Amino acid sequence: MKTLSVNNLKKVITKRPENSHKGTFGRAVLIGGNEQYGGAIIMSAQAAIYAGTGLVTVITDRKNHAPLHARLPEAMAVDWLDTELIDRVLKSADVILIGPGLGLGLISQHLLIHVLESQTDKQWLIIDGSAITLFAEKDYPLNNPEQTIFTPHQREWEALSGLPLKQQTDKANQTAREMLKASVVLKSHCTKIYTSKTIYKTPIGTAAMATGGMGDTLAGIITGFIAQFPAKEEALCAAVYLHSLIGEDLSKTQYVVLPTSISEQLPIYMKQFEEK
Amino acid sequence: MKTLSVNNLKKVITKRPENSHKGTFGRAVLIGGNEQYGGAIIMSAQAAIYAGTGLVTVITDRKNHAPLHARLPEAMAVDWLDTELIDRVLKSADVILIGPGLGLGLISQHLLIHVLESQTDKQWLIIDGSAITLFAEKDYPLNNPEQTIFTPHQREWEALSGLPLKQQTDKANQTAREMLKASVVLKSHCTKIYTSKTIYKTPIGTAAMATGGMGDTLAGIITGFIAQFPAKEEALCAAVYLHSLIGEDLSKTQYVVLPTSISEQLPIYMKQFEEK
Amino acid sequence: MKTLSVNNLKKVITKRPENSHKGTFGRAVLIGGNEQYGGAIIMSAQAAIYAGTGLVTVITDRKNHAPLHARLPEAMAVDWLDTELIDRVLKSADVILIGPGLGLGLISQHLLIHVLESQTDKQWLIIDGSAITLFAEKDYPLNNPEQTIFTPHQREWEALSGLPLKQQTDKANQTAREMLKASVVLKSHCTKIYTSKTIYKTPIGTAAMATGGMGDTLAGIITGFIAQFPAKEEALCAAVYLHSLIGEDLSKTQYVVLPTSISEQLPIYMKQFEEK
Amino acid sequence: MKTLSVNNLKKVITKRPENSHKGTFGRAVLIGGNEQYGGAIIMSAQAAIYAGTGLVTVITDRKNHAPLHARLPEAMAVDWLDTELIDRVLKSADVILIGPGLGLGLISQHLLIHVLESQTDKQWLIIDGSAITLFAEKDYPLNNPEQTIFTPHQREWEALSGLPLKQQTDKANQTAREMLKASVVLKSHCTKIYTSKTIYKTPIGTAAMATGGMGDTLAGIITGFIAQFPAKEEALCAAVYLHSLIGEDLSKTQYVVLPTSISEQLPIYMKQFEEK
Repeated sequence: MKTLSVNNLKKVITKRPENSHKGTFGRAVLIGGNEQYGGAIIMSAQAAIYAGTGLVTVITDRKNHAPLHARLPEAMAVDWLDTELIDRVLKSADVILIGPGLGLGLISQHLLIHVLESQTDKQWLIIDGSAITLFAEKDYPLNNPEQTIFTPHQREWEALSGLPLKQQTDKANQTAREMLKASVVLKSHCTKIYTSKTIYKTPIGTAAMATGGMGDTLAGIITGFIAQFPAKEEALCAAVYLHSLIGEDLSKTQYVVLPTSISEQLPIYMKQFEEK
Repeated sequence: MKTLSVNNLKKVITKRPENSHKGTFGRAVLIGGNEQYGGAIIMSAQAAIYAGTGLVTVITDRKNHAPLHARLPEAMAVDWLDTELIDRVLKSADVILIGPGLGLGLISQHLLIHVLESQTDKQWLIIDGSAITLFAEKDYPLNNPEQTIFTPHQREWEALSGLPLKQQTDKANQTAREMLKASVVLKSHCTKIYTSKTIYKTPIGTAAMATGGMGDTLAGIITGFIAQFPAKEEALCAAVYLHSLIGEDLSKTQYVVLPTSISEQLPIYMKQFEEK
Repeated sequence: MKTLSVNNLKKVITKRPENSHKGTFGRAVLIGGNEQYGGAIIMSAQAAIYAGTGLVTVITDRKNHAPLHARLPEAMAVDWLDTELIDRVLKSADVILIGPGLGLGLISQHLLIHVLESQTDKQWLIIDGSAITLFAEKDYPLNNPEQTIFTPHQREWEALSGLPLKQQTDKANQTAREMLKASVVLKSHCTKIYTSKTIYKTPIGTAAMATGGMGDTLAGIITGFIAQFPAKEEALCAAVYLHSLIGEDLSKTQYVVLPTSISEQLPIYMKQFEEK
Repeated sequence: MKTLSVNNLKKVITKRPENSHKGTFGRAVLIGGNEQYGGAIIMSAQAAIYAGTGLVTVITDRKNHAPLHARLPEAMAVDWLDTELIDRVLKSADVILIGPGLGLGLISQHLLIHVLESQTDKQWLIIDGSAITLFAEKDYPLNNPEQTIFTPHQREWEALSGLPLKQQTDKANQTAREMLKASVVLKSHCTKIYTSKTIYKTPIGTAAMATGGMGDTLAGIITGFIAQFPAKEEALCAAVYLHSLIGEDLSKTQYVVLPTSISEQLPIYMKQFEEK
């Protein structure tokens, strides 16, 4: 088991190449936000944009477009019923995040199936929130598990792995992960990352972060890091560590840390760890 | 009569347990915001979230969902006509706040009746604003008065207690409260709390806080404190005191204190009084 | 002619009475914002709220409700087609502002006529923007001209007074004003106020304030001051002076001063001039 | 070839004339923002307003009006289907920007054709984003090429000029520009401006600016500068330089520079270079 530290940030957050354009830093497509949970995908999108993703498109219930653009004009918006446009947008994606606020309805299921079936061998896929619940219910195959990341909290992992909370030991988790062949970010007060190489442990984190939307924000940061940095496993580790680091720092002056306040700090924190 | 002080904050605002998750800090459901008064429930939701509630769902007229999410992606939104979803959401609630911007229409009445009938013996219920007016008009029974809090201003208390403004003495108020069996937060330039144990008096507060939305914000803070802290009467006292304390502090540099500017200070103020 | 100064602020901005509530500081109703100009009435509302009005209701095209509440949950919103609710809301008003972004359409005309006909002898009325243009076209009578304020810029004053730009001397303006019997705030790079008593001159102001929405903001500040301070002519003078003062101060560090940035400063500036 | 510097800012950003009003600083009409790309035109509008344009009207898909006004009440909004109002608004424009988030659909094409056909000899026209793509596909004539500015990135310039990326030398670009007779801002990590007089080079800029919306923001700044400053070529140069200057400064503390954070700095930066 490896313990994450600021070194993981320094290794990953490289100086951007001068001769670059927005495409250089990745095209991310974020899918989620039903009638009830629109805020979740908005928080993911804010995290992805503030983490430096080149281009972010959000596929969501049309009712969420106005608040998305009121907060984030940097994002593009696609109606989650517009299958033709969804197809086109998915094809151009480098990273796809599905799940934040997605819900368990029929549209949500169809979107998940479509994403799972269309993932190419160049695309990374992050499966979060209700998409994990949906995935756990059915026996969906993964096109490209080596480039797939699940980000469950403990109950979602229970459904996905079949492991009751008490049996979620590192060994059992790693065995369950091997069946999936994907990477797993198991969120808790001490988040761990299970990959084909090893297990990573976040030594920081705080109960001040235990508030709705924190996971959606983490999923967005992961998306942004996978989108723009070439070493993907290292990028995943850096994203998870940075999320906890900012949360812990903010908790020194704030009793509860709002997810959106973590996103706002991303450009400043990333600069501090930029490799020179 | 007891006088509230910063000690009430220190006693209540404990260090969060490390091994916790968002559920640990309560599920709150906020009901209000009709066609005209959508801003009221948005202000309550902001207060509840910034006060540290684990999960906040807002049941409101659909037209209020977009501005709610534009300001507060951390909140979840439910159409106040979606009775099936309302049922499900209410069942999972630890605390229910009904009233801010609710209005007096038919939907509002149905929602109030439904909430009153469905309150379980585990749930706390806070009745504010137009829900008090509606409650005062009819002879509704309370399922669980010991876990119910009314937050009237003086005119609403007049309707609820039958006591004309001039007869609202502590003694008469306490007698009227005994009939209700609930707790009462009587808002004025010197807010008092009447409970089955005693009367609490807020020695602070300022006319700079006399502006629309201040009561909605107080109701949201109370909701957040009841949701996350175990000693409920103490939590109620702390919420009322903190609201006045922040308002008084801000009024030293601001002629009028906007309700939303109080909510923004909550995480910082709560940290300062966190018990070590 | 009198020249306005900070003394006008000190005289008007009194310490708020302790035993007060939101009603003490006035109920303002703001009418404007059609399909195209919704932002105008939102800016007026922000100014009125940040200036300390007790309660602000905005009557506007329904499409403007969501952005209004996204920026200003403190405001209440009424659909400008809901004649029944408009009636009720107008009756409870202490001050009515009509005009910002109102436009010249049929609904706008009907609203103006209704407001003019229903003004009681207790209500103050502020007529701004397109409402001035509409008023100038027809021969509408004023119910209560002594409690009416027009806030034209020079072209609108030309239409209202019949005075071509070059003939707008103080004497001619005052004569035209006498016909109206109302007060007139003539906006320019050196705004003047014509009342039945005298002419007031603003010695400050800056071209950095020459940007869309500045007049809407001024109208909102006037509304807030008339709503909450008892000496109405003095309140009008103070509002006009404060608007220019903040604008001039901000222009020392900003090439263009956005109207909304003036509103944000109102609570802080008002505190500085509060009479002790 | 001339290299841009802060001197270009000092020459252009003059002290505003005292006897001025919002009309003095230009009427800009911005056209863009379809169903998917609404954020783009919102970012352009923010840039144009914060750069000091007197009056900004945005013609866009109606679904973008609410988020536009939630962020920018200073802007006016016109439905991009309301041809009659579009006609009226276009006639009063000093500068027209078409393209940010416009898309390639039928409405977009019709708007572009209409704008191209109606450009008067007093109006400046800026063609950006998808409007360049549409323009490149057809053989549209320009009414007034000397008062037209194209702002392509390299791929759009490839379509417009017919020059493959590798053949985009200064000489070839200038020759292609001569065919158009318009000015060309060729966006890259080292943006250049091709005009009938010369070629200008921006010596600054940073990969931290390589994020979605940066071009929309540049287009808005150009619009604002052309709208308010009399020497148009110099204004164009100043706008391009200022955009890079702010971006570079912000990148010293931020790993990624959000487009909207550049706009927020405009009034402060412009003040610093104001000619005394």
